[in-house]
Amino acid sequence: MTIEIPDNEPAVHEEMFNWTQDLFPICRSITGDGVRETTAYLRKILPSLQVHEVPTGTECFDWKIPDEWTIRDAYIADTSGSRIVDFKKNNLSVVNYSISVNQTMTLDELEPHLHSLPEQPDAIPYVSSYYKPRWGFCLPDRQRRSLGPGPYKVKIDSHLGPGSLTYSDLILHGSEKTEILLSAYTCHPSMANDNLSGISVLMAIARWLTTQQNRRYTYRIIFAPETIGSIVYLSRHLEVMREKTIAGYIFSCMGDDQSYSFQETRWGNTLVDRISRHVLRHHTSQFQTSTYLERGSDERQYSSPGVDIPIAVITRSKFDLFPEYHTSLDDLSFISSSGLGGSFEIMRKCIAAFENNYYFRTTHPCEPQLGKRGLYPDLNTKTLPHSVRDIVNFLAYADGTIDLIALSEQIQLPFEQCAIFVKSLLSEKLIESSINPWPSKRQG
Amino acid sequence: MTIEIPDNEPAVHEEMFNWTQDLFPICRSITGDGVRETTAYLRKILPSLQVHEVPTGTECFDWKIPDEWTIRDAYIADTSGSRIVDFKKNNLSVVNYSISVNQTMTLDELEPHLHSLPEQPDAIPYVSSYYKPRWGFCLPDRQRRSLGPGPYKVKIDSHLGPGSLTYSDLILHGSEKTEILLSAYTCHPSMANDNLSGISVLMAIARWLTTQQNRRYTYRIIFAPETIGSIVYLSRHLEVMREKTIAGYIFSCMGDDQSYSFQETRWGNTLVDRISRHVLRHHTSQFQTSTYLERGSDERQYSSPGVDIPIAVITRSKFDLFPEYHTSLDDLSFISSSGLGGSFEIMRKCIAAFENNYYFRTTHPCEPQLGKRGLYPDLNTKTLPHSVRDIVNFLAYADGTIDLIALSEQIQLPFEQCAIFVKSLLSEKLIESSINPWPSKRQG
Amino acid sequence: MTIEIPDNEPAVHEEMFNWTQDLFPICRSITGDGVRETTAYLRKILPSLQVHEVPTGTECFDWKIPDEWTIRDAYIADTSGSRIVDFKKNNLSVVNYSISVNQTMTLDELEPHLHSLPEQPDAIPYVSSYYKPRWGFCLPDRQRRSLGPGPYKVKIDSHLGPGSLTYSDLILHGSEKTEILLSAYTCHPSMANDNLSGISVLMAIARWLTTQQNRRYTYRIIFAPETIGSIVYLSRHLEVMREKTIAGYIFSCMGDDQSYSFQETRWGNTLVDRISRHVLRHHTSQFQTSTYLERGSDERQYSSPGVDIPIAVITRSKFDLFPEYHTSLDDLSFISSSGLGGSFEIMRKCIAAFENNYYFRTTHPCEPQLGKRGLYPDLNTKTLPHSVRDIVNFLAYADGTIDLIALSEQIQLPFEQCAIFVKSLLSEKLIESSINPWPSKRQG
Repeated sequence: MTIEIPDNEPAVHEEMFNWTQDLFPICRSITGDGVRETTAYLRKILPSLQVHEVPTGTECFDWKIPDEWTIRDAYIADTSGSRIVDFKKNNLSVVNYSISVNQTMTLDELEPHLHSLPEQPDAIPYVSSYYKPRWGFCLPDRQRRSLGPGPYKVKIDSHLGPGSLTYSDLILHGSEKTEILLSAYTCHPSMANDNLSGISVLMAIARWLTTQQNRRYTYRIIFAPETIGSIVYLSRHLEVMREKTIAGYIFSCMGDDQSYSFQETRWGNTLVDRISRHVLRHHTSQFQTSTYLERGSDERQYSSPGVDIPIAVITRSKFDLFPEYHTSLDDLSFISSSGLGGSFEIMRKCIAAFENNYYFRTTHPCEPQLGKRGLYPDLNTKTLPHSVRDIVNFLAYADGTIDLIALSEQIQLPFEQCAIFVKSLLSEKLIESSINPWPSKRQG
Repeated sequence: MTIEIPDNEPAVHEEMFNWTQDLFPICRSITGDGVRETTAYLRKILPSLQVHEVPTGTECFDWKIPDEWTIRDAYIADTSGSRIVDFKKNNLSVVNYSISVNQTMTLDELEPHLHSLPEQPDAIPYVSSYYKPRWGFCLPDRQRRSLGPGPYKVKIDSHLGPGSLTYSDLILHGSEKTEILLSAYTCHPSMANDNLSGISVLMAIARWLTTQQNRRYTYRIIFAPETIGSIVYLSRHLEVMREKTIAGYIFSCMGDDQSYSFQETRWGNTLVDRISRHVLRHHTSQFQTSTYLERGSDERQYSSPGVDIPIAVITRSKFDLFPEYHTSLDDLSFISSSGLGGSFEIMRKCIAAFENNYYFRTTHPCEPQLGKRGLYPDLNTKTLPHSVRDIVNFLAYADGTIDLIALSEQIQLPFEQCAIFVKSLLSEKLIESSINPWPSKRQG
Repeated sequence: MTIEIPDNEPAVHEEMFNWTQDLFPICRSITGDGVRETTAYLRKILPSLQVHEVPTGTECFDWKIPDEWTIRDAYIADTSGSRIVDFKKNNLSVVNYSISVNQTMTLDELEPHLHSLPEQPDAIPYVSSYYKPRWGFCLPDRQRRSLGPGPYKVKIDSHLGPGSLTYSDLILHGSEKTEILLSAYTCHPSMANDNLSGISVLMAIARWLTTQQNRRYTYRIIFAPETIGSIVYLSRHLEVMREKTIAGYIFSCMGDDQSYSFQETRWGNTLVDRISRHVLRHHTSQFQTSTYLERGSDERQYSSPGVDIPIAVITRSKFDLFPEYHTSLDDLSFISSSGLGGSFEIMRKCIAAFENNYYFRTTHPCEPQLGKRGLYPDLNTKTLPHSVRDIVNFLAYADGTIDLIALSEQIQLPFEQCAIFVKSLLSEKLIESSINPWPSKRQG
């Protein structure tokens, strides 16, 4: 076994919550110092993380890296100078990527630049405009409806100009060159579940993986702004990733305490689909499943035609199913250490499933004589103990044509229980493992 | 796009009804002047239709063209000379292919030659005896039960002797040599739905296809007597049809106003099955499905082992499900221009689906930047408009491995809506089409 | 046709019951004179049965033939010498393979050597200990609880020492070298359903097969002790059996009058699965299905990885579902001649299905003219008779790609009905048969 199936580590659950708390106040965007500051924090936990800057104007497939955005202050003040909308209190208040403005104007003039959610009157929405220069403010609808006719002092102290986009990655080599991709996006301002939870869980997973010396697979871990970040990453690593990556996960919305959601890959039946379903079925009381049609994050790039990496997403509340999504209500009170912890443990089980997922075949025709090895009762009575039945079933299907996950499903056991026999059966030389190269990614 | 998806043409619906009315009185059979007269009428609408005569005695596979049947008059008269059963009033009254008779006889002697339907006492049944010489009359059961003991004057003025069988065809070449077969049968006497409706709809379809200058497929359109007609046709064109024909439709029972019925091909999952189901699902409120076990027309020949053309049948009321079937109740009052029109439009949609059914693949890895082309909102808010989502979904699955129909089903849209994006995506060079040769007819 | 579909033979049903009665008293085990005596009885019915002796110590894969067990007497007597547990009254009373003992002891000393079933207080359980030397007695739990403190005279007059294991086989050659395996186990002492019923039905089947001169398949019929017997058999015939055997049945638990149970092969969809399901569906009012996970007999060896013979098991009450299983309650009153007879007839139908299971294809393109052969009505009316429809359906699917069983399922008829057309269609040269070599055992 390359990676042992780990026990729960509650101390890590608390740590992840603390990291999220530390990162919460930073104003991130697809470029700028917010991502840099976030990345610097990650490097404290993962010192081997490599940081990369991609200059404005760099072409990546159909896209170009945009100007870098710097934001220093933004507010709407009344005539007395009192700030009624203030970026410094909540960085969602400014439309992300706003150009600068410094003007006094009436409410009528201001209105086209205001964004709110009538159906969630107390929430500040998260709005961005990366590729069209505009400015704007976001505020609770209740507040908006109470605004007087003005005039208002409106100021955004921002800058758009040549700079660079920041992303970071970490490659943990395994004994096989085959890669598993783990990716989180780093561009969202102050929201806890989407996506500081994903960042924190991926940090903890990455740190844990660095401690696993006998890794079988190579892990490519990426922290990058959503969409443009994964696109620029792929533009630099397409060939190797397309060739070597058999599976991946996007880390997103992993911090609340709701039941799990599983989003299938574009193909629906690849190895990562099978493993995720198996783990969720055996380790959660229930979970929702959605197809790739409901996708929303960087799997859009990694799984696109021409890249074709099967990406699954295991979240708690799925992004489009919790009302706090993309609003100021997605704050630290919405997540918990147990929410983050549950996600962390599920992801570790999935990774352990990948690592242990060999093909096994028996070494003898017919059943071996388990009795002489103490694995079978020496007195035959009416029924066979369950534990013996499980081993006998394992051997009955271990013909080298199906992997451990499929074999576990066949004999209706969680793979970890099979992994326990596997050790003794290997040491008794009753089975041997054969690394069956995946016949194709899609069939996994 | 080779054939545009057409708009409804109500004027054609009326025209089809008029043609049916004109053709209704003719007494057709598998040979004889009835088919010739019918074919002459078709040529007025489709001047390029080729007419063929196959002499009596011609061998075709396991069959031989029978003697030609000529019918001039037939009646049962009472002693006063008054016709109580009269071929001239309804040509179903005589058993089709009756030999001649001219006799006076009692009811007892006449009885073995009478056919009626006790469960439909007012209907004259349609009965034929092509390959065994016999004579007979068909009449309503109610009338039969009121007949006195006779004697009756019984006369059939008919002739059976060497002649020929008449069929006609039309080949409309497309840019590809691959063929689609469209066939209707022409041997039924005065019945409106079975099968003048099929003849009329196929005429309208054929005329429409002649106006389509950029046809992709080659269309082979056949009007022939049922069974023996399609057998003799195949005996003359087997090699080319077996090699080139990927799909076909029998045109039958298309004129009433009931909901649609779809009969699967022998294989159940070929291209024509997928297209028919897709079109019916998106363009009818409901439809019935039956398998090839319920077949009843020339698909029995075209799809037989050794010919193996996948044939689907889209009808309104399926032949074995409307009580008027094969009786005098299947008259002009049973069909309507809207019934014919609905079938015409469904068939055009199916043909447009074939014509537009290319394989598409994206030209860039990763999603293209739709925003700079005005295809994506420049302001990111909580949700993505449906129309944008549809395009993004299309691109997400356009990997060149599935055809437009499968892709449309995958993203849950009617193919016509996808065909609209396809135009702009092609002109933006965001996708390219690849004509994937069908891996096999059956998987189609 | 190689083997005709047989009619029921009630006389055989009685005979099987008589054989079971004769064999019931013998004390069998995996070695020893009990199996030899049983085998000698079988040879009276099947004179060509070959008997084999395998010496103690012979290695077979992971196993070794154990010492031979001889049992002469065994009892527990009270101080008056009166036997209260007596092997001569019921040979289940002694733990099978008990070493000898001759001692006087208290109940407390005796207790660890007693076996009973609290939940079935009147049943003597069947217990064995082949590979660990021990001694013991089995008795009804009610009796055990009534035993006084003793002392007791305890005697087992048995012997364990070098000898041999006895099995027998019979190979009935067919015109093809492909083999079907039929196997029953012979090691159980006095129990009627498990497994004298299996032995008796297999004897009757084997005798019937010897009378079939035109057998297509070669039948390998084996009577051997369970587990060690099939293992040693396979160790001597592995190559030929792995290569040539396409299917097999274990004969077990076939004598009671309950509804049938069908246990799938390891693969679940092989030829023997399809045939068994087809026969049971058409010839029983209902039957239970279980998967290979519920297996319990020699299919564990024959279907093990490295042997890979698809074995199905058709029983009446499945071994783990009748409470009499492996107790003294499984006596002659539990079975009946009609129970045995039903199993016999079902197995003959399955074998006839194998023998008749050719691939058929039509000789003409298009439908043949059945009318001129008297197979089609010469008068066409509204509906086609069922019997004609069946033939037409058969021809419509007879394209040489599916076997008779699949074709029968396609057209929803029992295969025997198709086998009737097949004769006339072959003699009319309307179809020809093609022996399609099985593409693979598993897809069978």
